[in-house]
Amino acid sequence: MDDRSISHKRNSKRRGLVIVNTGEGKGKTTAALGVLLRAWGRGFKICVIQFMKAETGRWGEVRAAEKLKIEWHKSGGGFTWRSDEMDESTARTRHGWTLAQEKIASGGYDLILLDEFTYPLHFDWLDTAEVVAWLKANKPPDLHLVITGRYAPQPLIDYADLVTEMRKIKHPLDQGIKGQRGIEF
Amino acid sequence: MDDRSISHKRNSKRRGLVIVNTGEGKGKTTAALGVLLRAWGRGFKICVIQFMKAETGRWGEVRAAEKLKIEWHKSGGGFTWRSDEMDESTARTRHGWTLAQEKIASGGYDLILLDEFTYPLHFDWLDTAEVVAWLKANKPPDLHLVITGRYAPQPLIDYADLVTEMRKIKHPLDQGIKGQRGIEF
Repeated sequence: MDDRSISHKRNSKRRGLVIVNTGEGKGKTTAALGVLLRAWGRGFKICVIQFMKAETGRWGEVRAAEKLKIEWHKSGGGFTWRSDEMDESTARTRHGWTLAQEKIASGGYDLILLDEFTYPLHFDWLDTAEVVAWLKANKPPDLHLVITGRYAPQPLIDYADLVTEMRKIKHPLDQGIKGQRGIEF
Repeated sequence: MDDRSISHKRNSKRRGLVIVNTGEGKGKTTAALGVLLRAWGRGFKICVIQFMKAETGRWGEVRAAEKLKIEWHKSGGGFTWRSDEMDESTARTRHGWTLAQEKIASGGYDLILLDEFTYPLHFDWLDTAEVVAWLKANKPPDLHLVITGRYAPQPLIDYADLVTEMRKIKHPLDQGIKGQRGIEF
């Protein structure tokens, strides 16, 4: 446990926001990382659960989180569209959601990020109505919850306080420029 | 000077991206902060110049940058629309742009963020054509440059590699919920 979690005073008057970053463009996870950085700057207690990214990845954000001592869980097995790997994706997702439920219900955090959590909802690996009902019943009122990913289902959008769509105007891949380390991952 | 700038090896093959986050929605600066966090996680040498935010602000991101020892300059005097303060805004902007030119041309950075730099261009406090021409001539090829703000002028979009529009779908202010510390600032 680091000193931030001890020194931080919980603000009972705070309204915990449900924030959804969705859309086809870049910047969904990236903007969530920016929120994380701000929250960390304020001494917030933070937990991140990644639902889709490969477990073996040593992305820039994972390296940063390690240095910042931000709690970071990877439940995802990478993007999988092959039907023979679907069962594993479902199992990993359920494990991630169980972990998320524990962390959310614990009341021990100021900000929880469920990264790429829209995908298991979109693909029906989890039931959106059940997830939203659970959040409504169990999310502490002062907890900020950030959810990222394309195809945010409408019930999640209805539940959220702040929804932003990231829309691509121009992308380097269109010009044959590959993803840049430290910028896009 | 911290150890990251010493240990970091410059990558001559890297393609420095020009990234613009624009649009009416939330997340422009926030996504830029996420890029910063990734880049910091990779040990990149970073410089931030804020063009519009109030100098006296002790925002979450400024607190975080101090802790991370990220170089951070505030040239802005806050959003000003009053005509009697316009001259001061212009002067501050020119000071900020001169500083940005020094930092960019120095070749000493991996990533430079010009936060809310679109506004001085939009309001013609700086000449967009001149700024873009200067960047084309002077930006080191391996330097990543991130620019945020609404109303990104077309010549800047034409020059950029990656342009994302943040579009508001739903905002807590619409429901009378005020901005939350550690999340939105």
